[in-house]
Amino acid sequence: VAVCGPSTATDGERRDAFEVGRLLAERGAVVICGGYGGVMAAIAGGVHSAGGTVVGILSGADRTGACGDLSIVIPTGLGEARNAVIAKSGDAVIAVGGSWGTLSEIALAMRGGRVPVVQLCGWRVLDVAGELIPGMRHAATPAEAVNLTGLWPDKP
Amino acid sequence: VAVCGPSTATDGERRDAFEVGRLLAERGAVVICGGYGGVMAAIAGGVHSAGGTVVGILSGADRTGACGDLSIVIPTGLGEARNAVIAKSGDAVIAVGGSWGTLSEIALAMRGGRVPVVQLCGWRVLDVAGELIPGMRHAATPAEAVNLTGLWPDKP
Amino acid sequence: VAVCGPSTATDGERRDAFEVGRLLAERGAVVICGGYGGVMAAIAGGVHSAGGTVVGILSGADRTGACGDLSIVIPTGLGEARNAVIAKSGDAVIAVGGSWGTLSEIALAMRGGRVPVVQLCGWRVLDVAGELIPGMRHAATPAEAVNLTGLWPDKP
Amino acid sequence: VAVCGPSTATDGERRDAFEVGRLLAERGAVVICGGYGGVMAAIAGGVHSAGGTVVGILSGADRTGACGDLSIVIPTGLGEARNAVIAKSGDAVIAVGGSWGTLSEIALAMRGGRVPVVQLCGWRVLDVAGELIPGMRHAATPAEAVNLTGLWPDKP
Repeated sequence: VAVCGPSTATDGERRDAFEVGRLLAERGAVVICGGYGGVMAAIAGGVHSAGGTVVGILSGADRTGACGDLSIVIPTGLGEARNAVIAKSGDAVIAVGGSWGTLSEIALAMRGGRVPVVQLCGWRVLDVAGELIPGMRHAATPAEAVNLTGLWPDKP
Repeated sequence: VAVCGPSTATDGERRDAFEVGRLLAERGAVVICGGYGGVMAAIAGGVHSAGGTVVGILSGADRTGACGDLSIVIPTGLGEARNAVIAKSGDAVIAVGGSWGTLSEIALAMRGGRVPVVQLCGWRVLDVAGELIPGMRHAATPAEAVNLTGLWPDKP
Repeated sequence: VAVCGPSTATDGERRDAFEVGRLLAERGAVVICGGYGGVMAAIAGGVHSAGGTVVGILSGADRTGACGDLSIVIPTGLGEARNAVIAKSGDAVIAVGGSWGTLSEIALAMRGGRVPVVQLCGWRVLDVAGELIPGMRHAATPAEAVNLTGLWPDKP
Repeated sequence: VAVCGPSTATDGERRDAFEVGRLLAERGAVVICGGYGGVMAAIAGGVHSAGGTVVGILSGADRTGACGDLSIVIPTGLGEARNAVIAKSGDAVIAVGGSWGTLSEIALAMRGGRVPVVQLCGWRVLDVAGELIPGMRHAATPAEAVNLTGLWPDKP
């Protein structure tokens, strides 16, 4: 499961991201994230707290700035094109909070159309008539976000 | 100037894209686009009609599916990571119409924060409180879209 | 440690690759490879046999064709540009056998100049005067390849 | 036609690169190069001198360091993964001189196997038995390099 979110985050977003990471690790999922600060660091912390595996796919060409709780660090040197890698790498994508970088990952994942994309408390995308663009799933809590991926249909 | 838009487009979007391409070519700008169908083909047609130069940066590894009026075709083989290249390649980005692929280019360009991004008749992005995310410029006509790039401050 | 090699391999290359994977896993290294067949599958098998962690960074946009023993699979959709990601992702690069794809990874890693690059039984690169280009380390056995990375100076 | 070569070059390599650029422009080819100094700048100068079109595909995210004679500049922000884009972008690849970056482009183009690859006065790649790896074409002069692309079978 890929989890994405901004490097500048509110306390609430960080708490949500930590909880999403923890829940995914408890369910045995490998978590992939952007590997820097803010929401990304909180995700890594949550996965780490539950003894799970979290991979950081960095935009930079080396490990500078990587957050602390990553199991595996992959510097790509791709710049923002690494967002397309993150968007493709999971069986589901969960976004916590909103930023242009996060939105690019959501859009690339929705564009691929291959996996469920869940948004927790972030930005909304409307068409020219003001209607919500369909397809993206919206969650209000970390537990709902994990459930809406549909990867664990038998869990409550 | 990079111009982006969906491969499936309405007649109105195609007319707008053609006109944006024509206006940019008249002002001497090199135009960069995704090089496939729909809005992309219409942009290329507009640039071509005014004798300008239009570059198509393809996601595929060869020229399969490239539209007809391109001056230069660059197959990248990068898949959707090529959207990050398009988003970075211009002194301004104009988006005509809406799709997840187009939104990813807008988001990557806004994320970069380096160049003006203008949206013509496309999707809207709101924050969690329902406010329009600031920074993107919205145009109602092709001429307004070209003017809002700010690249030709002396033109009417 | 990134280990690379061709998808079409001799029995000897596959045995060497398996042994390199096994030795790296025994030393606790996370191993990164291209994730498909031939040398890549043998590396993954070697790591798996020793209970280690092996990441496959695929060129494709999904898991089609990925080999069986990978701990983590990352489809990138980047095509051959993913070779640049593999070349950057390790603290050392070991190449087993020769192919143009493998050579591109060696060249990108040498170009980066950041990490040791070790070649086991593969191609040789000469300058115009017929001299071996300096900088690459050449090993004759899997154990020598692992030692020449210099990552475990205290091991025999 | 993509032409590649190192940013640090001898006077002879720069003269050869200029001449290759000039000859390609005279034949009406659009030339694609890496867009920085050394061989890349000399190629651009040669194309420019003959009134041709030369595109620089940069590794950086903006135009910093781009050479002077480029018709079109495309910053990709991809780092060295942009070498894979250059390797894919032409109907033929000509390499002038040798470096690890240049070799990565040659190897990626040979790996693709889609287009002829011509080497002018650069590095040689041998297999483990000391035999030249087949497939790459070797030229001794700029005119021979252009002819060996096979794109102009009727020209002397």
